Amino acid sequence: MPGPSVFSAAQSTAEAEEGRTLAPKFDADGLVTCVATDAVSGEVLMVAHMNAEALARTIETGEGWYYSRSRRALWRKGETSGHTQRVVEMRIDCDQDAVWIRVEQAGPGACHTGRRSCFYRAVPLGRPGAVTLEFREERAFDPAAVYRGGKPTP
Amino acid sequence: MPGPSVFSAAQSTAEAEEGRTLAPKFDADGLVTCVATDAVSGEVLMVAHMNAEALARTIETGEGWYYSRSRRALWRKGETSGHTQRVVEMRIDCDQDAVWIRVEQAGPGACHTGRRSCFYRAVPLGRPGAVTLEFREERAFDPAAVYRGGKPTP
Repeated sequence: MPGPSVFSAAQSTAEAEEGRTLAPKFDADGLVTCVATDAVSGEVLMVAHMNAEALARTIETGEGWYYSRSRRALWRKGETSGHTQRVVEMRIDCDQDAVWIRVEQAGPGACHTGRRSCFYRAVPLGRPGAVTLEFREERAFDPAAVYRGGKPTP
Repeated sequence: MPGPSVFSAAQSTAEAEEGRTLAPKFDADGLVTCVATDAVSGEVLMVAHMNAEALARTIETGEGWYYSRSRRALWRKGETSGHTQRVVEMRIDCDQDAVWIRVEQAGPGACHTGRRSCFYRAVPLGRPGAVTLEFREERAFDPAAVYRGGKPTP
């Protein structure tokens, strides 16, 4: 899929890394990775993907838009739950295949399971053998009540 | 590629989201996404990928290991530059296809271009038309001096 006109064509490595031109390096599926962190706490809320249209809409509107790989659909964060994201700042990485947005997260949480962050379980380090995850965050809302049409997949 | 024995086989969505079993959902290339943030500042330092071996080694050693897609090689962060990462905490997300590590970053920076973070440029929001990136971070080290064998690709 060709990107909207705000995005330039692919550049050399030096241009991509040291230039001022936004030329996102979309992968074979037309996606870049997006990390959303809470603008206040710094916590990572979610990792998701953006296609060219989602990225363009996020830049234009200052609201978080994504592309759902499982649903194969453009997706405005919060369109069902009301838990929208206002983007305070967007950064792009050295090789322009990942963006970082600092957001003001509306509502009690970003995760479709009902937690504030999708990263609600810790992986213990340095222990040999099978790993048992440790829950670090309680539910902040009831997903069954928020997603009345059925819980979405991420 | 089969994962090391520390990882369980794929689970149902409910098990993946609400269980205590680590069963990473590697993509078609055998990778999960990893976000590394600075344990002190909360800043996103880099977004990279881990295959099963990189993830297992990170868990076992508490040091950041990745898989370079461009070099098709396992990669201990800092093996050339000395800019290693000590992992303070690892989290996994709801559907187990992304990990977040909070790290103590050794040396002046994580980015192969010489910056502390790979996300050294901001994308201005809400402006129609072509986007001009804004540099937000100076170089913290000289990559030509650090990577004497040639600057790596991310």
